[in-house]
Amino acid sequence: MIAFGWNSIFQEQVAGHRARDGRLGPLIDDAGRFYKPLQGDERGANEVSFYASFSSNTKIPDHIKSFFPEFDGTRLVEASDGSGMQTHLVLQDLTFGHVNPSIMDIKIGSRTWHPQAPDGYVHRCLKKDRGTSSLPLGFRVSGARIFKSTESGYWEPENRLSIQTLSADEVKLLLKSFVSSNTSEEPHMKPDCAFASTVYGGSNGILSQLVELKAWFEDQTIYHFYSSSVLMMFEKDLASSGKSPRAEIKLVDFAHVHKGNGVIDHNFLGGLCSFIKFISEILTTPEDSSADSLVEDAQRNHIHSENGSVYDVSLN
Amino acid sequence: MIAFGWNSIFQEQVAGHRARDGRLGPLIDDAGRFYKPLQGDERGANEVSFYASFSSNTKIPDHIKSFFPEFDGTRLVEASDGSGMQTHLVLQDLTFGHVNPSIMDIKIGSRTWHPQAPDGYVHRCLKKDRGTSSLPLGFRVSGARIFKSTESGYWEPENRLSIQTLSADEVKLLLKSFVSSNTSEEPHMKPDCAFASTVYGGSNGILSQLVELKAWFEDQTIYHFYSSSVLMMFEKDLASSGKSPRAEIKLVDFAHVHKGNGVIDHNFLGGLCSFIKFISEILTTPEDSSADSLVEDAQRNHIHSENGSVYDVSLN
Repeated sequence: MIAFGWNSIFQEQVAGHRARDGRLGPLIDDAGRFYKPLQGDERGANEVSFYASFSSNTKIPDHIKSFFPEFDGTRLVEASDGSGMQTHLVLQDLTFGHVNPSIMDIKIGSRTWHPQAPDGYVHRCLKKDRGTSSLPLGFRVSGARIFKSTESGYWEPENRLSIQTLSADEVKLLLKSFVSSNTSEEPHMKPDCAFASTVYGGSNGILSQLVELKAWFEDQTIYHFYSSSVLMMFEKDLASSGKSPRAEIKLVDFAHVHKGNGVIDHNFLGGLCSFIKFISEILTTPEDSSADSLVEDAQRNHIHSENGSVYDVSLN
Repeated sequence: MIAFGWNSIFQEQVAGHRARDGRLGPLIDDAGRFYKPLQGDERGANEVSFYASFSSNTKIPDHIKSFFPEFDGTRLVEASDGSGMQTHLVLQDLTFGHVNPSIMDIKIGSRTWHPQAPDGYVHRCLKKDRGTSSLPLGFRVSGARIFKSTESGYWEPENRLSIQTLSADEVKLLLKSFVSSNTSEEPHMKPDCAFASTVYGGSNGILSQLVELKAWFEDQTIYHFYSSSVLMMFEKDLASSGKSPRAEIKLVDFAHVHKGNGVIDHNFLGGLCSFIKFISEILTTPEDSSADSLVEDAQRNHIHSENGSVYDVSLN
């Protein structure tokens, strides 16, 4: 088993049964299963009940179910921190069978708390939402891991907070870099968006999948997803060699899902539409000037400054 | 001139130049113009700049401009409270030429404050949003005036707060009553939704117009509308006699519009989609059981209680 967590997926991939620093984290096996340790408080129980409800709900169409990790109950597994047997959610390992997936985690919604949450929790979340891209953009990038090449490995942000606080133009640039052949070896070149049309575009691309998901959110009143993410991934090697890049989206992190009570999830839907607009703009106007000036800014920053600005972190 | 304000439209219509209780309020003339006194603080200036920017913006398609009141600048007019000449916005009187319009005012968005607002303002708005339908539903009904008959006049809620705090089922029932022939003379009968198909449905109906507006909000990144409303109106007499009921929507109240800065208005869009779902459910399942049980509840309440519950207010 290898510890490889969605929450830490963009920071480290550690080999072996036990996480390198002895922390509790998710595990995977070689049969494509992902073991997520249950959070001890009500979040763990909440995530289990969501998966149990969702996977057995016959009103959810199959094409929507395919946007969620498969669920195989819970199991007692020896925890990665050496604390002994602990209950884990047994889920589909979303990166199973992938060679060098480029991955981004986008936490959807301008609001990460539900209306009935206690005041203290609301204020903590609100502070974070206001301090990050969530409130202005309706989503925040909460992780990115972009494959560069077999020699150079992956680009990852230096710290998670910086990537969560990107401006609209910085997010646009990062989303371009994600599908560019020149992302990171030449960090101050304008991203060429070489793979935009095959990864974001096309009938099986990310945009199509997002639009399919959006149609469901315009209609479904069963669940409200707070603090859940869209995971977006593809294989750059396949894209480079002209093959289908296995571009796909998955929804993850359901510790804060609540009942919809007959109302659509307007918070998630609004954020999803905002994210869709960013992706579709890259397809329609890959050469827009705001990104140009941002690249020029970055070049200036690189010359004059060594300390990582928010922008630098998103590119280096 | 007659004082007849959007803000007070659902509470009173007072004849004559001066408002009955001497308060400052909007005025109309007999040429179809609506004079809205400029709010003294930055809200007034903000609303003028929005109208000036919007009306001159050549990127806004004509079919979208038609969802907004026409703007004819500002003018010094003697104020309704007798305080002398004051600056008023000169707008289109949306009820001009209507005989007995039924009107609802729906404030769109789960959040009525913009991300850069000062803390004190945010907390005041947040408290109101949490205490009303805004946060759970993504919108709140902020006024309603439903024509019953020439003899009985209009139904109006007894107080504004009660209508702002309706639950999802109560909003559904109110939206059904809005297009029913038996709205108010028989308040405890199930609304018959007699005019739903002509007012909400059809190629020129409210739903079509809302969907058209939604398409614009999925794309436009120029303006973010906080605390703005969709005004929805039609003529019951026309509907009853089988004529086109002049069903239309208009956006109003732009004192809190901000620049979009390249991002869609995900807060307004989410709330709009939620409202659209309510309207479309009435068209697809006018006989759903939740409203049945609510009507039964209302009958029980009516028998056992004289004091107006939130629900009673929405019907009586």
